[in-house]
Amino acid sequence: MLTYNFEHLEGPIYAHLYESIKNDILTGKLAPGEKLPSKRTFAKNNGISTITIQTAYDQLISEGYIYTLPKKGYYVASLEGITHGATQANIHLDIQLPEATQYPYDLSNNGMNPENFPFTIWSKLSREVMNQQKEALMTVSPAAGISELREAIAWHLQSFRGMLVDPNQIIIGAGTEYLYRLIVQLLGSTHIYGVENPGYKKLAQIYGHLGVACRHLDMDEQGVTPESLVDSSVNVAHICPNHHFPTGITMPASRRYEILSWANGDEARYVIEDDYDSEFRLSKKPIPTLFSIDGCGKVIYMNTFSKSLSPTIRISYMVLPVELANAFYRNMSFLACTVSNFEQYTLAKFISQGYFEKHINRMRLYYLRQRTKTIAAIRDTLAESDYEILENDAGLHFLIRLHTNRSDADLVKKLHKLGVQIRPLSEYYQMPVADRAHWFIVNYSNLDEKMARTALCFIKRAL
Amino acid sequence: MLTYNFEHLEGPIYAHLYESIKNDILTGKLAPGEKLPSKRTFAKNNGISTITIQTAYDQLISEGYIYTLPKKGYYVASLEGITHGATQANIHLDIQLPEATQYPYDLSNNGMNPENFPFTIWSKLSREVMNQQKEALMTVSPAAGISELREAIAWHLQSFRGMLVDPNQIIIGAGTEYLYRLIVQLLGSTHIYGVENPGYKKLAQIYGHLGVACRHLDMDEQGVTPESLVDSSVNVAHICPNHHFPTGITMPASRRYEILSWANGDEARYVIEDDYDSEFRLSKKPIPTLFSIDGCGKVIYMNTFSKSLSPTIRISYMVLPVELANAFYRNMSFLACTVSNFEQYTLAKFISQGYFEKHINRMRLYYLRQRTKTIAAIRDTLAESDYEILENDAGLHFLIRLHTNRSDADLVKKLHKLGVQIRPLSEYYQMPVADRAHWFIVNYSNLDEKMARTALCFIKRAL
Repeated sequence: MLTYNFEHLEGPIYAHLYESIKNDILTGKLAPGEKLPSKRTFAKNNGISTITIQTAYDQLISEGYIYTLPKKGYYVASLEGITHGATQANIHLDIQLPEATQYPYDLSNNGMNPENFPFTIWSKLSREVMNQQKEALMTVSPAAGISELREAIAWHLQSFRGMLVDPNQIIIGAGTEYLYRLIVQLLGSTHIYGVENPGYKKLAQIYGHLGVACRHLDMDEQGVTPESLVDSSVNVAHICPNHHFPTGITMPASRRYEILSWANGDEARYVIEDDYDSEFRLSKKPIPTLFSIDGCGKVIYMNTFSKSLSPTIRISYMVLPVELANAFYRNMSFLACTVSNFEQYTLAKFISQGYFEKHINRMRLYYLRQRTKTIAAIRDTLAESDYEILENDAGLHFLIRLHTNRSDADLVKKLHKLGVQIRPLSEYYQMPVADRAHWFIVNYSNLDEKMARTALCFIKRAL
Repeated sequence: MLTYNFEHLEGPIYAHLYESIKNDILTGKLAPGEKLPSKRTFAKNNGISTITIQTAYDQLISEGYIYTLPKKGYYVASLEGITHGATQANIHLDIQLPEATQYPYDLSNNGMNPENFPFTIWSKLSREVMNQQKEALMTVSPAAGISELREAIAWHLQSFRGMLVDPNQIIIGAGTEYLYRLIVQLLGSTHIYGVENPGYKKLAQIYGHLGVACRHLDMDEQGVTPESLVDSSVNVAHICPNHHFPTGITMPASRRYEILSWANGDEARYVIEDDYDSEFRLSKKPIPTLFSIDGCGKVIYMNTFSKSLSPTIRISYMVLPVELANAFYRNMSFLACTVSNFEQYTLAKFISQGYFEKHINRMRLYYLRQRTKTIAAIRDTLAESDYEILENDAGLHFLIRLHTNRSDADLVKKLHKLGVQIRPLSEYYQMPVADRAHWFIVNYSNLDEKMARTALCFIKRAL
């Protein structure tokens, strides 16, 4: 009869029982295959509850020391296969990580200068949130995001962008890429998506990986052409009408209405309006968004805090037309919001207490100074006959045309050897376009003046 | 000749120029269609740089006050269609939000008691991160997550779970749902996914929404059966072998090897091992994971900090077998990581400085006390003949069988009227299973004792 001593115990009885049986198994006192007493008998014999025994047995089962046969009872297991804790300190498997070449003179870097992030305020607000909103922080966020943040964003869109939006139209997500996933899920994967050519290359890659058809849309100097929308048979046009990347084109009002007219030509057509850097144009009232002039629920507006705050805080949002918002709540509100409550509440405070506006104003001036410094560096280094600058609108980059006989590929190769990274506009085209050769993109948002001047000296040498 | 006065200016020149021209347009001094001077002429006449004029013109273009015709110049636009800022304070559209019924006596609540979150430590660590790691916080995270966090998780898995894992096998994501998306993307959407029946219902819903085929797998008292895997023709089995929800079953070693044997029967077969609550079983060395005993790269291990820390901090991770990890780095490293750097670095510190282990130990004791209190409440309220309790392993819930003649649906309906929420096990089955009637799930993780006792009084009345 299996009995143990439960007197003068420290700690819970089940743990003592578990340890005792385990010890008997490890020392061989209980042999593999041996039947253990039933819970009821065991409980009676030892004067403890069946629940305690169940708990100890369950733990022994989960560790593989004993096993149970339905309607028969509990048996001691064979000891083979039980792990006794790993001893190896570290393993390194044959995993090929993607290689990223770093260039010391990088004119393509659109990163964030750590000095520009409002650490003091952010830290203060996040501390406040943790002190004052414990209950809310531990309450699961609705799929669309917490209402405080969505209200703050609606307020921001109204005061900053002249957009009138119901906070319930706003869906928060961990980055725009995640929101594209939701859009594909919301609209259906049988749609054909269109992206701008030239444009942000990752976009086509993302849609491709999401398993949807993706085609390229031609552009003229007013943005995407209505003809290309029709010719390519796309249903969903993903465009940046307010400040196209990389050309900087702002779509004029007449073209905007043509695009909306196209969208209204078929029930299944939609426009995704990507307004990624709207905060960094000069005025407080940039051109009205497509979303604002859309009267028929055809435009999904997207924006992100990646450019305006930091790409490392993963918060983006989209504004859905009413019908799609209702479809979201009907079919997708079972999804968990992908942004942490801690950062949602902190950002809500950051916006509603006016810090975001102050931050944007400060950053605008900073980027303006960066641009001025970069252009001065170009003027000082290159001869006037070497280049031409195209600054469509403000923003975080401009285009430079280098007067050279070398091909873009040749020049880039030579510059790489010198440690200079600069991206040709041609890289952003789906297919090579002859008359766009020799245009290059200069990202000045995080450019160090000294580094830029060195890079320009090398460029001068390479021309 | 258009000239403006730039003397005694405050603020940037371009802003003054922009305001001056805009004012002249608004007052009609400059008429629609009128040609503006070229940048060069304008610059010369006013003694300012062409860049300044370009900036002002660009802003006027983006706001619709002027337009440009390629190779012709700049013209004053018609004023129709320019918005002058929204005045409406708030809009409320006809958006139907999902309804959530709240019951005052809720035995299904698996939420987090705010008192249990380590706010003091978390706040301290996040402050430290913001003070000491500014540069790192502003550097974009690799797709898989920052290496500090992946190393901390590898260390945790080794010391806590006996798993030997290369940190590069670990992929961080904003919640397990997001990671399922990545898995579907990684393995391909033509696979047939299998989920447990009974099981976590949302899972089938998620796979369904991701557009992949999803079938239900039968279980016996050892977990998913090998026969059901074969019969249902699934390729990817998503299972919880270590502590099945809701039955609490732990899959024994022999069945684990059968599952691995099935997975090795075809190149395209994989197992997703969902280890969602592993931290809350009693021992420090629970049964070895499927991932640990898999020698052939067939198991994707998944875990989350939702249960162990808080569901409102959206951090989960998966451990990929080497081949899939390489496929991830080859094809998907262009994706942005969905978790904020701020929380990744904070969590990395939280784990590597031992706070996570302390927190888990504290929570284990708390949950044990919760369970004991809940069982005591049941024993005090219900007659012995009214019920039966099944506690397979520890965890955050147990099963209770209520001895009643009422059907589950009938009982739940009656309880809802009394304000009591409790979920029947039958709800977790794909189709009704007669012999599982009258089993109910009691989530005690966030249960208030007084509330539980009232709920039980109502249950007694309803039986």
